[in-house]
Amino acid sequence: MFKYQTQLLITKMQVNIGLIGIGTIGAGVVKILGKNSKLIEQRTGVKLNLKKVCDVKLDNAKSLGLKPEQLTKNADDIFKDKSISIVMELIGGYEPAHTFIMKAIKAKKHVVTANKAVIAKYGKEIFEAAVKNKVNVKFEAAVGGCIPIIRALQHSYVSQNIKKIYGILNGTTNFILTRMEEGMSYEDALRKAQQLGFAEADPSFDVEGKDASQKLGILAMLSFNSWIDTEIRTEGITRLSKNDLIYADELGYKIKLLGIAKKDDNEIELRVHPTMIPKSHGLAAVKNELNAVYISGEDTGEGMLYGKGAGQMPTATVVVGDVVDIARNLDCASKIDMSNKLKIKDSSLIKSKYYLKFTVLDKPGVLAKIATILGNNNISIAAVAQKEIEKDIVPVIIITHTAIERDLIKAVKEINSLPIVKNETVLIRIEDLG
Amino acid sequence: MFKYQTQLLITKMQVNIGLIGIGTIGAGVVKILGKNSKLIEQRTGVKLNLKKVCDVKLDNAKSLGLKPEQLTKNADDIFKDKSISIVMELIGGYEPAHTFIMKAIKAKKHVVTANKAVIAKYGKEIFEAAVKNKVNVKFEAAVGGCIPIIRALQHSYVSQNIKKIYGILNGTTNFILTRMEEGMSYEDALRKAQQLGFAEADPSFDVEGKDASQKLGILAMLSFNSWIDTEIRTEGITRLSKNDLIYADELGYKIKLLGIAKKDDNEIELRVHPTMIPKSHGLAAVKNELNAVYISGEDTGEGMLYGKGAGQMPTATVVVGDVVDIARNLDCASKIDMSNKLKIKDSSLIKSKYYLKFTVLDKPGVLAKIATILGNNNISIAAVAQKEIEKDIVPVIIITHTAIERDLIKAVKEINSLPIVKNETVLIRIEDLG
Repeated sequence: MFKYQTQLLITKMQVNIGLIGIGTIGAGVVKILGKNSKLIEQRTGVKLNLKKVCDVKLDNAKSLGLKPEQLTKNADDIFKDKSISIVMELIGGYEPAHTFIMKAIKAKKHVVTANKAVIAKYGKEIFEAAVKNKVNVKFEAAVGGCIPIIRALQHSYVSQNIKKIYGILNGTTNFILTRMEEGMSYEDALRKAQQLGFAEADPSFDVEGKDASQKLGILAMLSFNSWIDTEIRTEGITRLSKNDLIYADELGYKIKLLGIAKKDDNEIELRVHPTMIPKSHGLAAVKNELNAVYISGEDTGEGMLYGKGAGQMPTATVVVGDVVDIARNLDCASKIDMSNKLKIKDSSLIKSKYYLKFTVLDKPGVLAKIATILGNNNISIAAVAQKEIEKDIVPVIIITHTAIERDLIKAVKEINSLPIVKNETVLIRIEDLG
Repeated sequence: MFKYQTQLLITKMQVNIGLIGIGTIGAGVVKILGKNSKLIEQRTGVKLNLKKVCDVKLDNAKSLGLKPEQLTKNADDIFKDKSISIVMELIGGYEPAHTFIMKAIKAKKHVVTANKAVIAKYGKEIFEAAVKNKVNVKFEAAVGGCIPIIRALQHSYVSQNIKKIYGILNGTTNFILTRMEEGMSYEDALRKAQQLGFAEADPSFDVEGKDASQKLGILAMLSFNSWIDTEIRTEGITRLSKNDLIYADELGYKIKLLGIAKKDDNEIELRVHPTMIPKSHGLAAVKNELNAVYISGEDTGEGMLYGKGAGQMPTATVVVGDVVDIARNLDCASKIDMSNKLKIKDSSLIKSKYYLKFTVLDKPGVLAKIATILGNNNISIAAVAQKEIEKDIVPVIIITHTAIERDLIKAVKEINSLPIVKNETVLIRIEDLG
């Protein structure tokens, strides 16, 4: 028999919380607590009291309505305060976020974070420390902004063998690809994203796929109960041109930067790269800065969650959701099982269909040469299309049947070395998401 | 300060559960417990023990691997068993499901149900009894099958002012509409759905929108914290023809049976009816028997969850998810606040754009007559299209600007009484989902 902490059902209670970091997300949390505390109390009986707020800069504290007695520049003031039960870490980046989270846990405080980088890199250490110190660590906001994907995996699908995950996990790149679909160049689309605040001045973390890769690692950890300590094979969107999106469209596809996780017995396949997906698929309809996670489970079949993957208020909303869950004693998810020691599949062995764009001289026999090399490498051709000539140079599009990545890479390398080939061949993997 | 039941984080424990009803969903739960109990234990430390199973017919018990000592035809054997903590009610329908749920609650047992009808009709009584008896009642499977929408509303979005919900809440009708889009008649599509097990022999509960209406009521209750005791204005799909779907397509729309809930200060708008939505919208991509819920929150903006809205294993998965949550003592959600006494907006006062299909004789002056009546009733026309003649009868499609439902109904009634109008006018509301 087990016991219930049933008083929570009916008793109202106040919970003291601490906040580290009042940048974008932190300020959002302060705003939500300001305007919606009554609503939270009405719905749950929990009264959240933001007792201490810490940041190195406290310039915006006053405009957020914070009082001097709430403020500190020393995070230890939070860790040492025995009345504080839950600490929100909303600084971002590896340090001092990681150190603060560990300090909070050791001070027996529950932690809520939006920090994908720290969870992806230090998750194992953090969750082990949480169990040891009997506290919870929640991180819904770390993946997919306000999309309740972490909660779905940990709760609704707790009995579920997850087979596949396809995620549009980065809003910046999805925004850029949406603009490129409309005919903008990569450079213009990136500039537009920067103007609108969807991309950083140095956009490499997003456009190279690293952000998506960290988030995919977290989803894979939860889905497959295995710590992911291998670098995930990651390719960004910087080599795509708007023509690739136009040609894809003509072929019935959209191009999305997908995080892909597949489980097959004791091996998992993990990769982040631009992917051609059928236009009719739900993921293809996810536009602009939105994020989406498509899950295929053994019993649940196909499902998808989508919404704002970033932004102040959406992200802050689920941070507050995590805090309330802990306050209601609803979540003991810090026991994140990672006992499966799953092997990550060698990325050269993955199987896929491919879109290949060769840029060749307009001469007789060119296609024959390319086709011969593909054939010699066990790659079978599903469709060919020759595009309009631009100054003696012709883009030739080839769609392959399913091939092994290693063979494909070898063939493309051979073809790239032919004198008739003028630019490096563009290679985009195709997922039919069937 | 509040206390945590921290032993749950690290201790393994066995929880005895009882199951009433081994029809489709119940059998699914037995299967999942059979094959995935180890996975649940690995992930959460909870070992679920299916101690008693009750049904009036126990014919399939043996094939499910249940042992004689687990079986009973008397539900009281479950309620009286002090070692059982959680009861799953998976009979469906109002009675005896409602009576069994109340008995379980009074016997201080937590309840998990997939029963939308009982929650929609007796929810207030059930949740009040649950608080009084200090137990939880969970019902994720009651709306949207395995889509984690209840959990999202109760947890992730607990701080959120929900503004609008648009739901494709019934798989049967969505399957039929998908077939009609492809050119099938309503009758053939219904027959197809029946052959595939997506529609009952008597399909009226689904096709008349009643199933969707119950689910919408539950979502509105959770979103707006108000008990919904008014009948929801409901219109099914039986009056649609495949031509309506084709004309809608030409105009850039899909037709979906939507449950719509909108909150505006102290009034809520609730309705279920066929709705024209832009083709480019995520909801338009939800096909076949899938369900989807689109939520617009004050801070979260737009988001959507979609997946299998029915079926044995998807539904059983989230039933098990609810059981595990209770076993982990994770959920005290029985405190479902319904303290808002919100007024349901008079459905004759709703505002919408409309698609109107008039079937008229091919004579001069017909359009002028229709336009005059619309104008006299304050209805302004956005677009007109005349379709191909069929035996002297012409379908005339009019798209209106935003109008008040009362005015529209009055105008259509007047127009229907004109001798030139041969069939009852088809009226479909348009939502731009902006």
